[in-house]
Amino acid sequence: MSKPSIPQGTRDFSPEVMSKRKIIFNTIESVYASFGFMPLETPAIENLSTLTGKYGNEGDQLLFKILNNGDYLNGIDLNSEDYKSLLPKIAEKGLRYDLTVPLARYVVMNRHAIQFPFKRYQMQTVWRADRPQKGRYREFWQFDADVLGSESMLCEADFIRIYKTVFKKLGLDAYEIHINHRKLLEAITYKANASELFKSITVAIDKTDKIGVEGVKNELIKLGLNDSQVDTIQSLLIKQPLNKELLIELESKLSDIPIAKEAFADLYDLIDLCGDDASEIILNGNLARGLDYYTGCIFEVIPTSVKLGSISGGGRYDDLTSVFGSKEKIHGIGISFGIDRIYDVMDELNLFSNQVSYFTDVLFCPMDRNAIPYILKSAALLRNSGFKVEIYPSAVKLKKQLDYANYKAIQWAVIIGDDELKNNTVTLKNLVSGKQEQIPKESIEDYMKSN
Amino acid sequence: MSKPSIPQGTRDFSPEVMSKRKIIFNTIESVYASFGFMPLETPAIENLSTLTGKYGNEGDQLLFKILNNGDYLNGIDLNSEDYKSLLPKIAEKGLRYDLTVPLARYVVMNRHAIQFPFKRYQMQTVWRADRPQKGRYREFWQFDADVLGSESMLCEADFIRIYKTVFKKLGLDAYEIHINHRKLLEAITYKANASELFKSITVAIDKTDKIGVEGVKNELIKLGLNDSQVDTIQSLLIKQPLNKELLIELESKLSDIPIAKEAFADLYDLIDLCGDDASEIILNGNLARGLDYYTGCIFEVIPTSVKLGSISGGGRYDDLTSVFGSKEKIHGIGISFGIDRIYDVMDELNLFSNQVSYFTDVLFCPMDRNAIPYILKSAALLRNSGFKVEIYPSAVKLKKQLDYANYKAIQWAVIIGDDELKNNTVTLKNLVSGKQEQIPKESIEDYMKSN
Repeated sequence: MSKPSIPQGTRDFSPEVMSKRKIIFNTIESVYASFGFMPLETPAIENLSTLTGKYGNEGDQLLFKILNNGDYLNGIDLNSEDYKSLLPKIAEKGLRYDLTVPLARYVVMNRHAIQFPFKRYQMQTVWRADRPQKGRYREFWQFDADVLGSESMLCEADFIRIYKTVFKKLGLDAYEIHINHRKLLEAITYKANASELFKSITVAIDKTDKIGVEGVKNELIKLGLNDSQVDTIQSLLIKQPLNKELLIELESKLSDIPIAKEAFADLYDLIDLCGDDASEIILNGNLARGLDYYTGCIFEVIPTSVKLGSISGGGRYDDLTSVFGSKEKIHGIGISFGIDRIYDVMDELNLFSNQVSYFTDVLFCPMDRNAIPYILKSAALLRNSGFKVEIYPSAVKLKKQLDYANYKAIQWAVIIGDDELKNNTVTLKNLVSGKQEQIPKESIEDYMKSN
Repeated sequence: MSKPSIPQGTRDFSPEVMSKRKIIFNTIESVYASFGFMPLETPAIENLSTLTGKYGNEGDQLLFKILNNGDYLNGIDLNSEDYKSLLPKIAEKGLRYDLTVPLARYVVMNRHAIQFPFKRYQMQTVWRADRPQKGRYREFWQFDADVLGSESMLCEADFIRIYKTVFKKLGLDAYEIHINHRKLLEAITYKANASELFKSITVAIDKTDKIGVEGVKNELIKLGLNDSQVDTIQSLLIKQPLNKELLIELESKLSDIPIAKEAFADLYDLIDLCGDDASEIILNGNLARGLDYYTGCIFEVIPTSVKLGSISGGGRYDDLTSVFGSKEKIHGIGISFGIDRIYDVMDELNLFSNQVSYFTDVLFCPMDRNAIPYILKSAALLRNSGFKVEIYPSAVKLKKQLDYANYKAIQWAVIIGDDELKNNTVTLKNLVSGKQEQIPKESIEDYMKSN
């Protein structure tokens, strides 16, 4: 029998890795909840009619399709089929590709029960049949939050606050929050008399980090813009800390463009509604992601001490549900955290060591079978006080038990041999400092707290 | 465009339902962790070579298979294929069917990095293409814990303690923990000279709850047992609280059967290692689940105030990994909680109302756009103190804002109009009692705590 394996692009998460991932999950979840977001879960399996056509042609290729059960070929004349025509006949279901389309589907199906603003968070796995490569997986987690049915810039401001709170709790302080506004980009292309090329221009601009300002200039010229147009655009694509002075200056350069007014009104509003949290936001004219979908503010969070690309992104959109034939235009704003990237950044910066351990705090080490009943109550009391407590399940040699403690990075060993049994004591050993002491059985918790 | 739907046997979990499910998830997870279990996650997608043949023929039928991506028919001569022969050529991957086979696969692949006893918990979705019916889903959660590599009965005793702790925290007190021992069943069939029918006999016995003692008697007679054999078996299948006196009496009736000694040694040990937690365990001779796999103690937890079948089960096994060709016989013990059943029991008994709410505690209601910046700091302070806090994102009519608070079952509304802005106050309203009062802006937290 050959050794088992897992499919390309999927991963096992060992206890050590999971305990770190859980720190990220739990932190984001608790922060989302503290801002009034509510949990939602949708099935991993969706009808292909729900998923197909929502992610472009390339996305349709990347959907994992589930073979119908039973005799899936029943009634099909194979002679007249190729793999494309056969597909919808033998596979009616597929795996979730993101969390946005399921949200839209959920809202359309449950519109009667939903009251706006609807604030939901969702942390679930998604699947994409991408070619596996370093840092790109076929099965991975998304952790989204969206507010539906509110146009208030308080939503944007709250997401800024959520970023700051999450990364502060994770101990990750070297990052920048970049924002841009679709209407600012529209105003800039309008100013350069190049509105009809909006889409191609923003695709070029979005490559600034990769190919540099000169590279973007070449791309814009290839699109047919003249030097003056390119200069107009590039001189307006600033990347500076967001504040009112900056906006006033930029606004003066675009004062003749009507749509600019809407962008600036939003940005002034954002500064006001962020309050003290407005500092550290960078207005980045080159941020031009997701413009097929985003209609207002766009967000991106970039770690600055590790080169790894963005660790979160999002934006405002004005139509979530028309893909499902809904006549009501549901607008909203959402962000998504990149769990794998955040993990990599924190691991590289050794930030997990500052977080509370997920593993056992105290290992009771019985040197004798009779020591186990002797310590049951002590173990239960410590658990009641919130400690994670194990009793080594058999009275093997102490070295073996301490090896186990070491393997699980357990701080405290409580050793019980004949002497301790006789004297109603335990020997408490701090496995970090190496210090050990025989103390009364009742004093374990007090001793640990004061040592 | 037709209204979207979700596949049969799958579910959306609304925020209201999710918030209750999370109470169950978090409780079980924190209890598992408090006993030193560590989290593990494995991919949803496994190779079909890993899954096939592990769950019997019926199980193989119930696996969800994933169609290969791209031109999955490339190189296949469809004329010589039927749906069974074509299947392994067009689908190489499938969805996880349970959490035990992935655990075994993980252990075989990572044996070098694992130190025994290996205590892992795993909470993930599994998929089965069962015919959907009430209470049976095609996508559902399992929440397992296993200890590998220890034969100590402390593992069994710890699982008893885990049951008691979990259900106490959930407020679910009307339940029984049933245990049995495979070797006791073997001893009983041996005593009745019917060892060769062990499997069929235990299948019949396991139906006692459904068809009654008389029904089981008829089944045993159909198997070819005579009245005396049936009497011997049924007289030894007791269902009584587990204690030493009961064991002594039962042991005396099986004193001539060697394998009975092993069962009784385990059960005496269990009582000793449970300590005070041994009360409330029922020795149930009719519990005969999973005997293809279990080799020692078997567990089942039955709610007693709601007729819903078991809410958890488990048992000891002596060979996890030989299905993957491992020569090392890895023994262990595991349990699994039935999340959907626990949810149904708690919902029926209205036990969720005693649990902490997952939703917003405080809603700030601005009567004026200027009220929003005025209260940003207060909202941040409350969040820092652990409250879940929302600011209604626009200054719409108070009635609309309070409707929203009502929809989310929010207890506190903090109302800010012209008067409050002028006086540096807020109006705090308890939406449960209806009482409201104008207080200084700094006193919100103190007021909530004392009212």
